[in-house]
Amino acid sequence: MSRKELETFAADIRSFIIEKVSEKGGHLSSNLGTVELTLALFSVFDFPKDKCIWDVGHQAYAYKLLSGRKDGFDTLRDFGGMSGFPKRTESEYDAFDTGHSSTSISAGLGMVAARDNQGEDYHVISVIGDGSLTGGMAFEALNNASRIRSNYIIILNDNEMSISQNVGGLRKYLTGIRAGRGYNRVKSDVKKGLTGIPRIGAAIVRVISDIKDSIKELLVPSGMLFENIGITYLGPVDGHNVTEMKRILKEAKELNRCVLIHVRTKKGKGYAPAEEKPDVFHGIDPFDIATGKVKKEKTAPTWSEVFGAFMAEEGQKNRKLAGITAAMSHNVGLSAFEKSCHDRFYDVGIAEQHAVTFAAGMAAAGMHPVTAVFSSFLQRSYDQIAHDVCMQDLPVTFAIDRAGLVGKDGETHQGVFDICYMSELPNMTVIAPKNAEELTEMLRFAVNEPHPVSVRYPRGEAYTGLSGFRSSIVKGRAEVLYRASGIALLAFGSMNETAEEVRKNLKEQGIPVTFVNLRFAKPFDEALILELTKDHQLFVTMEDGAVSGGVGERIGSFLAENAPGARVMNIGVPDRFIPQGTVAELHKMLNMDADSITERILSTLK
Amino acid sequence: MSRKELETFAADIRSFIIEKVSEKGGHLSSNLGTVELTLALFSVFDFPKDKCIWDVGHQAYAYKLLSGRKDGFDTLRDFGGMSGFPKRTESEYDAFDTGHSSTSISAGLGMVAARDNQGEDYHVISVIGDGSLTGGMAFEALNNASRIRSNYIIILNDNEMSISQNVGGLRKYLTGIRAGRGYNRVKSDVKKGLTGIPRIGAAIVRVISDIKDSIKELLVPSGMLFENIGITYLGPVDGHNVTEMKRILKEAKELNRCVLIHVRTKKGKGYAPAEEKPDVFHGIDPFDIATGKVKKEKTAPTWSEVFGAFMAEEGQKNRKLAGITAAMSHNVGLSAFEKSCHDRFYDVGIAEQHAVTFAAGMAAAGMHPVTAVFSSFLQRSYDQIAHDVCMQDLPVTFAIDRAGLVGKDGETHQGVFDICYMSELPNMTVIAPKNAEELTEMLRFAVNEPHPVSVRYPRGEAYTGLSGFRSSIVKGRAEVLYRASGIALLAFGSMNETAEEVRKNLKEQGIPVTFVNLRFAKPFDEALILELTKDHQLFVTMEDGAVSGGVGERIGSFLAENAPGARVMNIGVPDRFIPQGTVAELHKMLNMDADSITERILSTLK
Repeated sequence: MSRKELETFAADIRSFIIEKVSEKGGHLSSNLGTVELTLALFSVFDFPKDKCIWDVGHQAYAYKLLSGRKDGFDTLRDFGGMSGFPKRTESEYDAFDTGHSSTSISAGLGMVAARDNQGEDYHVISVIGDGSLTGGMAFEALNNASRIRSNYIIILNDNEMSISQNVGGLRKYLTGIRAGRGYNRVKSDVKKGLTGIPRIGAAIVRVISDIKDSIKELLVPSGMLFENIGITYLGPVDGHNVTEMKRILKEAKELNRCVLIHVRTKKGKGYAPAEEKPDVFHGIDPFDIATGKVKKEKTAPTWSEVFGAFMAEEGQKNRKLAGITAAMSHNVGLSAFEKSCHDRFYDVGIAEQHAVTFAAGMAAAGMHPVTAVFSSFLQRSYDQIAHDVCMQDLPVTFAIDRAGLVGKDGETHQGVFDICYMSELPNMTVIAPKNAEELTEMLRFAVNEPHPVSVRYPRGEAYTGLSGFRSSIVKGRAEVLYRASGIALLAFGSMNETAEEVRKNLKEQGIPVTFVNLRFAKPFDEALILELTKDHQLFVTMEDGAVSGGVGERIGSFLAENAPGARVMNIGVPDRFIPQGTVAELHKMLNMDADSITERILSTLK
Repeated sequence: MSRKELETFAADIRSFIIEKVSEKGGHLSSNLGTVELTLALFSVFDFPKDKCIWDVGHQAYAYKLLSGRKDGFDTLRDFGGMSGFPKRTESEYDAFDTGHSSTSISAGLGMVAARDNQGEDYHVISVIGDGSLTGGMAFEALNNASRIRSNYIIILNDNEMSISQNVGGLRKYLTGIRAGRGYNRVKSDVKKGLTGIPRIGAAIVRVISDIKDSIKELLVPSGMLFENIGITYLGPVDGHNVTEMKRILKEAKELNRCVLIHVRTKKGKGYAPAEEKPDVFHGIDPFDIATGKVKKEKTAPTWSEVFGAFMAEEGQKNRKLAGITAAMSHNVGLSAFEKSCHDRFYDVGIAEQHAVTFAAGMAAAGMHPVTAVFSSFLQRSYDQIAHDVCMQDLPVTFAIDRAGLVGKDGETHQGVFDICYMSELPNMTVIAPKNAEELTEMLRFAVNEPHPVSVRYPRGEAYTGLSGFRSSIVKGRAEVLYRASGIALLAFGSMNETAEEVRKNLKEQGIPVTFVNLRFAKPFDEALILELTKDHQLFVTMEDGAVSGGVGERIGSFLAENAPGARVMNIGVPDRFIPQGTVAELHKMLNMDADSITERILSTLK
């Protein structure tokens, strides 16, 4: 294709993506940024023989399109439809599943090692954004990349922002590169030295010719960070110029070592509303193309907003309160706190490990930090939660957003393990609210505890039902909403909404049940449960999280140890990875919806 | 003190540490490396008002000594005695507990944030080794350090090796600094530019004056990595010269920003055997000072050695097998494999996250990697195990060494969570052998599985009892060792040794019991357990790991759901952090020894 034809083709791809995302919802900004890069990759490489790993994976729509999945966009992110992320089970073109940040270089190095050990011949390319590069494991991988003695290509997709803005030194560093300043003063010396080196010489000299002089930049030359650790740096190159990228990719392909290509792209490229507000169009619900407005009308505050309102208000009163986020300030609801309590707000970048130990340090020095991270991303801090927070029993509150099934983002984003991984750690308290009001009360409880506390709540609009029940939060105490005998529903967090439906269903069938809002998964209310064994035979635990290792199993085992004879039924997410779909569809599929649970209870009674 | 007096004092401290470690065992090499650094710190800073955070913490003996804990060395690492690591509960001089690698900068930044927010006035110093710097979270923290506008000091204790050798690009980079080569060519220009900057000018210029010219080093000047991300670099300085370090520390103390001081030290300094073999003297049992020989005679192979022998042998036969370690090749037993299968051996440095996703990449490209990491350190890879290995159901074997209570290293090193965090992840199989022979069989099973498998085994000599029982390993099937009725002992892994004693105890009391070697914690043998409910009333689960979230609770809940009426007793590590002591002492304390368990069973029968 000619340059002109490529440009037209890129524009067509862009229109297609905008149209489909406006219908189905999805990740827009980053997908619009990688259209030309994807075209260049397909021109130079031979997929699926060559392997491309997309870090995070929310920039692979053009790649999906060019690898024969155009029709898939009609079911994009639907239950049973095409995933919004790379999936090996979906296409042989998808070399490695991604979803969480900063994994692509490690995975790429693993493939290179396997390829070389097995004497195979193909190229491996990892595409990673500058935001993902702030995740520590990307650095661990870069540190190991210097050992490579065969071809491996890292494409640094530098679009100047992760989901929020990039944070910290790396941003400063990349900005330095982007600014194009440099060291003309020593340019001729360098040229003389480098053009003698075969192949790489020309590319590096081209870079150096572009950059200007300054004493500071004498110490911060372009690509230095990567050259320092033994990785050949090529670029920067305009990520919206297919011809230029093809040229540099062909060059990189020939080098028997690790090459990093610095590609500059624009998030939201080609769609004005997304270029202006790339964070709003990062992950978006169906919207109107002409106005850029989301179609769905919001009715009630989300759980994140309830959390955000609490933080903004409490932050004014309590000078010891701090708010920490890992590149997700807006998404977790901390924007207001960020403004009003700016000195105590910390966005650490995509760096969940640091976020937690940083919080531990603050807590050890007398403050009470609240670390707000999505459930599935907080998995990355498991060791820091155990070793740095719980071991020292420090007052850190974990605001665990997107806890439970999250819906259309699928496997990688389902927040189903946090009850397990938090409950197994000593000194940790694990709580979840039945409704919006209780979330506020629980947060108030948490920030006044001199110990670690996890407060979990799901994605989406906060439930406002069961508002008549307002007993105060007491550590380790559940809340009895309805008292009967025979069957006890023990609901944790968001499953209270479902339990209320189950209760009504059973009541219609003439079966009154006890309905307990557990509140505490750890420590759970042993005394109450033991008391209930006197006149209850069936205990139905309900949680929006993995059954294996969840609160239901803990209660089940407690009963088997202390009141053998009580029958337990554990409702929750079964022991497998849960694909995409609406939360309602997924709950139905997993027999976690009110009707299915009602049926399961009725059939047990028979 | 005069220079001479300081030297004598340092020598005395060294002799004391060597003497005490030779008696009690402990970390020697790294503790001998930091004697002068500690003296310099105490000269310049005002502890405990100022805060020092020791990364990993196994280099803080001199610090403990100088902060009034001389007598503590008589009980070093003993049950109830002084810890080998910093502990806030032990002394107000210990600012933050450490044990795992790469946490000190995050914690330090947290303290700086809390100090500044609360308007307090003290210094915060993090001391981190070059090995710890390969851990990604250290980089996450460095990336955030550039934001600091008040004093914060990072001391890079550069001793050229972590526990094994440092790996990868960072090593190459630091070697470049150590080699002292540089860029005289631009020296005068730089001098002119930098001496204009108040305070930092002099220090940097001094560095530059030391370094030599070369085209390569024109691009790799000293400290560049750190200056690039906005951290002031001072050094390198001789870490065994107290006077020189005092001078540079005083200088650093005055800067209102983040300063990194590059200190060059020698592991094992002052004790010839440790200088020669710092890895052997990293953590060591009591030894003879004159010869450097460990006093305790070894009788049987350790679990790590059994693993190592399997890998060395299997590696010859199976070209798809790879071995991965995170700076622990010798400790996990991979030395022989490293030699014989060098192309398929990967030491990734202290980078457990990368180790796991690297393995996932290899597995996705057709190989079967075995990742050998200590249980407590593998916690850092939780998300990678979930998201990169289990989600794609990739054939990676996790050889989990030091699983269960490890003894004298205490809280931070106890490997008690792995059964929990592995069992809650879909697609994962979790197994543990009863004895040395079974470990080999289980590893053979694992490397032939097309799915992820965790094989866990404890620290120390491998158990060789119960050798008459050799049924083959079948997925999800337990091994019935003794069949009776009434009471069933369900033992997992190393607890089979204890269960055998319990069985004998009960037999002596005239109570024959069923004794099952569980083998699989996940999937556990549901069919067998259900069958046993026909003629058993009490099920005693036994595991050397946390009860909360462990296999016992899973079995308990399974019984409560499927055979209500069966009584369960869960033996394992209770829900708290377990301090140091011999494993026998700890098991006794936790009522996990054979006598205590026998008693618990007998009292339940009454």
